[in-house]
Amino acid sequence: MFRSGFTLSGLRPYLRGPLAGDLTAAVVVTIMLIPQGMAYAMLAGLPPQAGLYGAILPLLLYAVLGSSPALAVGPVAVVALMTAAAAGLVAETGTPGYELAALWIALLSGAMMLAMGLLRLGFVANFLSHPVISGFITAAGILIALSQVRHLLGIQTIGKTVPEVLPSILANLGDVNLPTLALSVLVLAFLFWSRKGLAPLLRRLGLPRAAAAALAKGGLFLAVLVSTLAVWALSLDQAGVRILGHIPAGLPPLALPGFDLDLIMLLIVPSAMIALVGYVESISIAQTLAAKKRQSIDPDRELVALGAANLGAGLSQAMPVTGGLSRSIVNHEAGAETRAAGAMTALMIGAALLALTPLLFFLPSATLAAIIIVAVVSLLDFRALPRAWSYSRADGAAMAATMAVTLLLGVEEGLMAGVGLSLALHLYRTSRPHVAEVGQVPGTGHFRNINRYEVVTTPEVLTLRVDESLYFPNARYLEELVQTRIAESPDIKHLVLMFSAVNDVDASALESLEMLLAKLHAAGVSLHLSEVKGPVMDRLQRTDFLHHVDGIHLTQLDAMAALAPALTEETLNQPRCERRKVLA
Amino acid sequence: MFRSGFTLSGLRPYLRGPLAGDLTAAVVVTIMLIPQGMAYAMLAGLPPQAGLYGAILPLLLYAVLGSSPALAVGPVAVVALMTAAAAGLVAETGTPGYELAALWIALLSGAMMLAMGLLRLGFVANFLSHPVISGFITAAGILIALSQVRHLLGIQTIGKTVPEVLPSILANLGDVNLPTLALSVLVLAFLFWSRKGLAPLLRRLGLPRAAAAALAKGGLFLAVLVSTLAVWALSLDQAGVRILGHIPAGLPPLALPGFDLDLIMLLIVPSAMIALVGYVESISIAQTLAAKKRQSIDPDRELVALGAANLGAGLSQAMPVTGGLSRSIVNHEAGAETRAAGAMTALMIGAALLALTPLLFFLPSATLAAIIIVAVVSLLDFRALPRAWSYSRADGAAMAATMAVTLLLGVEEGLMAGVGLSLALHLYRTSRPHVAEVGQVPGTGHFRNINRYEVVTTPEVLTLRVDESLYFPNARYLEELVQTRIAESPDIKHLVLMFSAVNDVDASALESLEMLLAKLHAAGVSLHLSEVKGPVMDRLQRTDFLHHVDGIHLTQLDAMAALAPALTEETLNQPRCERRKVLA
Repeated sequence: MFRSGFTLSGLRPYLRGPLAGDLTAAVVVTIMLIPQGMAYAMLAGLPPQAGLYGAILPLLLYAVLGSSPALAVGPVAVVALMTAAAAGLVAETGTPGYELAALWIALLSGAMMLAMGLLRLGFVANFLSHPVISGFITAAGILIALSQVRHLLGIQTIGKTVPEVLPSILANLGDVNLPTLALSVLVLAFLFWSRKGLAPLLRRLGLPRAAAAALAKGGLFLAVLVSTLAVWALSLDQAGVRILGHIPAGLPPLALPGFDLDLIMLLIVPSAMIALVGYVESISIAQTLAAKKRQSIDPDRELVALGAANLGAGLSQAMPVTGGLSRSIVNHEAGAETRAAGAMTALMIGAALLALTPLLFFLPSATLAAIIIVAVVSLLDFRALPRAWSYSRADGAAMAATMAVTLLLGVEEGLMAGVGLSLALHLYRTSRPHVAEVGQVPGTGHFRNINRYEVVTTPEVLTLRVDESLYFPNARYLEELVQTRIAESPDIKHLVLMFSAVNDVDASALESLEMLLAKLHAAGVSLHLSEVKGPVMDRLQRTDFLHHVDGIHLTQLDAMAALAPALTEETLNQPRCERRKVLA
Repeated sequence: MFRSGFTLSGLRPYLRGPLAGDLTAAVVVTIMLIPQGMAYAMLAGLPPQAGLYGAILPLLLYAVLGSSPALAVGPVAVVALMTAAAAGLVAETGTPGYELAALWIALLSGAMMLAMGLLRLGFVANFLSHPVISGFITAAGILIALSQVRHLLGIQTIGKTVPEVLPSILANLGDVNLPTLALSVLVLAFLFWSRKGLAPLLRRLGLPRAAAAALAKGGLFLAVLVSTLAVWALSLDQAGVRILGHIPAGLPPLALPGFDLDLIMLLIVPSAMIALVGYVESISIAQTLAAKKRQSIDPDRELVALGAANLGAGLSQAMPVTGGLSRSIVNHEAGAETRAAGAMTALMIGAALLALTPLLFFLPSATLAAIIIVAVVSLLDFRALPRAWSYSRADGAAMAATMAVTLLLGVEEGLMAGVGLSLALHLYRTSRPHVAEVGQVPGTGHFRNINRYEVVTTPEVLTLRVDESLYFPNARYLEELVQTRIAESPDIKHLVLMFSAVNDVDASALESLEMLLAKLHAAGVSLHLSEVKGPVMDRLQRTDFLHHVDGIHLTQLDAMAALAPALTEETLNQPRCERRKVLA
């Protein structure tokens, strides 16, 4: 691993082994990161250097603390969009207050990640379900693409959501700057083509396969180079093509941003969301890449490393960072074997900042916008929604709500709606649990749903399998359901509640069970429990309830053997038949 | 039932049967309700007639629409306190805006109850768990008692929560009005004594047992009568004893209160809470009393009836109402057999309003405050907290939080904290589910926790029983747990996940299972599922997952028979031994 690479005894194997791969990967990633960093800074509403600074100190900190050899940390599109949304709440883009807010977002989300990692609270991120994250990222991709249209067309637009931006684009279509549009079309066409067509072309030109693949990643760099030269040579900036202008040369100054408690309070919730989304995005990339190499990732250590990276960003005038999908794949494919690749990338970006910034003066914004558009297209997954819906209505609804609210109201609102709806649907489902009447599968001691299997039952014993923990939202539901069921069948003398799926019985449910027991006894029906699990039994043993109930049975077969011995024995000795009933 | 009592053919049995009981109950309840109604109006910050009006139209509507013969609807202490808290948000006590707010609270909570009943959404009330409700009512009782101290001492206080009211009482102790204090002490002493001592005394004076019990309920009335006469005879109002003063004679005018959209928006959330608390309080009283007579209550019909009663309150200048505990018990014990008793109570209150209001001019506020104090003492249940805590830490914590927040911050905040914490603790628990390693109980086909029972296992097969539905908050937890477990035991060749307690597998969990499957296969371990339930199987069949998994078994015994046939057969034929291991 990386740290051992810097002890004297460990250095030689590193130099002979992973060094070549790490160095190649670092070169390729740096070539992508310079234009992408500036582009994502533009997306976040920050000056271009905020993106480049985000590729220095944060990468070094991740290389020291992280656990993924392939993860490429740095500015990413979705976090840039969320930063713009959050900073836009407290200040206008381009003001010092806005830049201060972005630094505090990095510090706050970094501190939260670090705390979550140290407290081993990484599981909190699981509350962002897969469908919610997936819907959110697609919707964010649409918002990101829409936000770049103004740079592609050379117009002004306002707003951050679809109902704001779209009319604003349409209203300003008359102001389209034709040189900008022409440049955008050329750059976009080249970038989309280069993703598939550049590597084969280079190979036909005689390059070896690996070199061609690596060089093809330089498509972004080529677009930047050619479009910058074109603007300079043709003086397109005089014709209305917007350019980047002056970027301060040199490494970022280290400083704690100005303290402003009111500002911090406003940014806490958005920063928490950025921390969650950034972490979830990063950890899933890291785990996917690790799985390919049979390595494993420690989620809490990743949180600590990403937290430190963001604290580093906030202290070095940089935008918030996380692990990015496309650069991580490139890093992985270009041969990165240790986290030293990330550290080398940081050093190369630092060198570029010392030497290359004057060359970026004429870089057109339209090129950066085209780079963003090409990057976010890979985030869009429109087939995920029908897929989630067909698997589960609840997952589909949560995803659709996340997408709709993100597009119509904004990123924070969309995430909140998705998480809120996921939880609400879960609570709704558990508040009306599935309860199956079960009977004995002939030839076995196993009991299954009478509506799904050919099973044996007797009218005197009703066995209900409760398919949910009993807790306050569903406490009364079971009571009412049992009452209805008992009232329908006057033959029933014994009720067995099969507790194999009951993982908890809380105080409200206990009270409800006591009420049910009293009602059953009043109606001359006895109450038995079967297959009660250890943790539930431990708790019930602290109450009187077990003394009043008519029987507790280790297995459902024991319960039936006690209540209908002849039938049970006979059924047990029948030839086994597993025929599943055909459901109507 | 009540409605049949008004057809010609049904009238005679009613006159011969329940009439006597209903009439007695109505008289007794009316005698309690006149002072209590005025007292709770004072508690709500409203003029005394708002309480009396709350005992006319709402009672008639409940008698027509409700389902409980014993429930006594009308003003109650907790709802009065919540009304004061909500109306206090929008206006000062005693202003027309405050009274308008109280009417809209009745209308809004009535409309919400009605809608919930018609849409059969009564289950929503279950989200107020028993411990939360119980803690809330005890805390509300304390706040109510504290709010009446100023009337008992004849001082002025400010605020609604303990940290506000208590210092305010202490600061004003120098202003105590001694005649008021003397009156309070006498009335309180008499009321506390009369709850236990009046009926035996009356019996010793020669009254029959039933008559003595009924007359003893007149203790409140006696206190009102004597203290009013005392104030009048001794001119205590000149000595600083606050009196009720003029109450308009006659029935309440019917009118829709003035419409104010801003006001209504502010009152929606508090009204929803009042609707929920009022409904839960009422339905639990109705169900407890119905259980005593083997009758049943229709929760949705109760919601409709209570909703109509509150709409009636809002249209007739009355305060919000619900079913009250003490009057319902009195009603029940005094012999009420049909809902006609409630209608008769309403008529008697109406008659009192036409004739008796001038007699209440000298009624001292201190007497009403003493009546409130005596009523809320029965609400306090300080033993509920240790009881809930010893049964379940989560229930105890939710209850403690509800009480603490209610006392320190207010009623709405307390309820929200209780419900929020209950849900959060449930989600936390389900996010780290109990997973038990199981083995075969000798002599049976039943499998139980290896740490609790003497069971048989084989090192090649690991069977884990997952004690929770698999959904997004715990999707990754199982994956990590299995990985750790497999890494510890290199002998394992097969993993069986026993799904008997898995009631749902959502899209996030499915993705996690797919990831787990890939990792297991990479490690050379096969994955089997057993005892998958119908609804879960239906959903999994829509995916590819079932094609990749190595086996799905109807029962856990089938799974073991396939993976370790010799051992399983041998264990099955061993003599059964259920010995439960002693846990360390």
